[in-house]
Amino acid sequence: MTYCLAIKVNKGLVFASDSRTNAGVDYIATYSKMTRFVWPGERVCVLLTSGSLATSQAVVNAVYRDLENPDAEVNLLRPKHLHELASYIGKLSQKEQLMHAKAMEKSGSSAESSFILGGQIKGQEPEIFMIYPQGNYISASHDTPYLQIGENKYGKPILDRIIQASTTLEDAARCALVSLDSTIRSNISVGPPVELAIYQNNQIDEPFHQTLTLNSPMYKSLQKQWTQGLKRAFNRLPRFEWEKK
Amino acid sequence: MTYCLAIKVNKGLVFASDSRTNAGVDYIATYSKMTRFVWPGERVCVLLTSGSLATSQAVVNAVYRDLENPDAEVNLLRPKHLHELASYIGKLSQKEQLMHAKAMEKSGSSAESSFILGGQIKGQEPEIFMIYPQGNYISASHDTPYLQIGENKYGKPILDRIIQASTTLEDAARCALVSLDSTIRSNISVGPPVELAIYQNNQIDEPFHQTLTLNSPMYKSLQKQWTQGLKRAFNRLPRFEWEKK
Repeated sequence: MTYCLAIKVNKGLVFASDSRTNAGVDYIATYSKMTRFVWPGERVCVLLTSGSLATSQAVVNAVYRDLENPDAEVNLLRPKHLHELASYIGKLSQKEQLMHAKAMEKSGSSAESSFILGGQIKGQEPEIFMIYPQGNYISASHDTPYLQIGENKYGKPILDRIIQASTTLEDAARCALVSLDSTIRSNISVGPPVELAIYQNNQIDEPFHQTLTLNSPMYKSLQKQWTQGLKRAFNRLPRFEWEKK
Repeated sequence: MTYCLAIKVNKGLVFASDSRTNAGVDYIATYSKMTRFVWPGERVCVLLTSGSLATSQAVVNAVYRDLENPDAEVNLLRPKHLHELASYIGKLSQKEQLMHAKAMEKSGSSAESSFILGGQIKGQEPEIFMIYPQGNYISASHDTPYLQIGENKYGKPILDRIIQASTTLEDAARCALVSLDSTIRSNISVGPPVELAIYQNNQIDEPFHQTLTLNSPMYKSLQKQWTQGLKRAFNRLPRFEWEKK
């Protein structure tokens, strides 16, 4: 399993991902699920992956291959609009899945992968897209300012309570970390380290990027503060009638 | 969908359930999913239901029918142990499901139901059980003091952070309400009113029972306090390096 999310607020974009992959519960490994592609002053793309690791890796490899191939019909640099990049990722994903579909079906497994792609092309608005295993995609909106792939339920309530278009980039990043931490606590197939990228609108350069292990001071402090804050909030909840006597 | 949970702490048991049922998203109705069976001084059972409403209702009806039938092989009053009652509910559920299995399969739907049964029989320990659609069942334990049926993910993180065997009954009840409220906010197929039952060990009488609508003072106040408390906790999270300057 996996849990990745991207948030689009007025000031920019936040991306976060866990790093655990598993084949069943008896084979667990650590892989980064965040790839950044940066052409300073031109365009910035961040790609998050979930689902079949083989498909995800093949798509990332194909993206690099197409960038090096002058005859490639499309690559991350050519299209003028971010949604065309989302469509490109969807096509690569479909192509890779179809190649192995029959063999995967036979073994009762799935080659499906989902992706989040976000960033900014010079002169255009920053955007984030979620690309379904079927290759189609949706973008975030003012009313739904975040997108999730993988194990999305445990970490959703805090996003619903905190994230709005007006949220600061730093608060959006903290909320993404809390959302990931809640998921890591409840599902062992989602695990550290946690990768975080923060992109400020119109910066069109390498986003701020951090890899947080359970021992990173920021992550440890956030975990501790959040646990204490939740307990404090919990202890202030209203009493039942008979407790007031 | 549905969300019901039961918590077993040192002092007693807490049961909570939502009341929304749906057939797709275009037919939503309100049904109680909590049934209490009380023989003061003798035994107390609380039954929570999720899954197919037809199966759930048929099982509850069968339980009442068997209580009125002097020739019934087993009913809620005869067995000496609570786990035998769990087994009885599992058998009723299986029987009902099998009756409709073929027709349900044809229509691509499912007659599966899950149950939580808890309570106390005089002279014995209080217990809670989760009964799977297959009829088998598990009990809670000191390390895993709660059981959930239905949409269990959104409301799990807060249970994992708060509930321990030493938690007071009132805190366990408040935590159950927060867990339900988080689920109601994130999944429209889980909805109010919320039913709450609190059973104190060795009381062997009608548990405290309350039905809370969104307008109930306790529920409104709990929602408001929790939202405020979460925001306060969130605002106290550690800052990034550049925010400290």
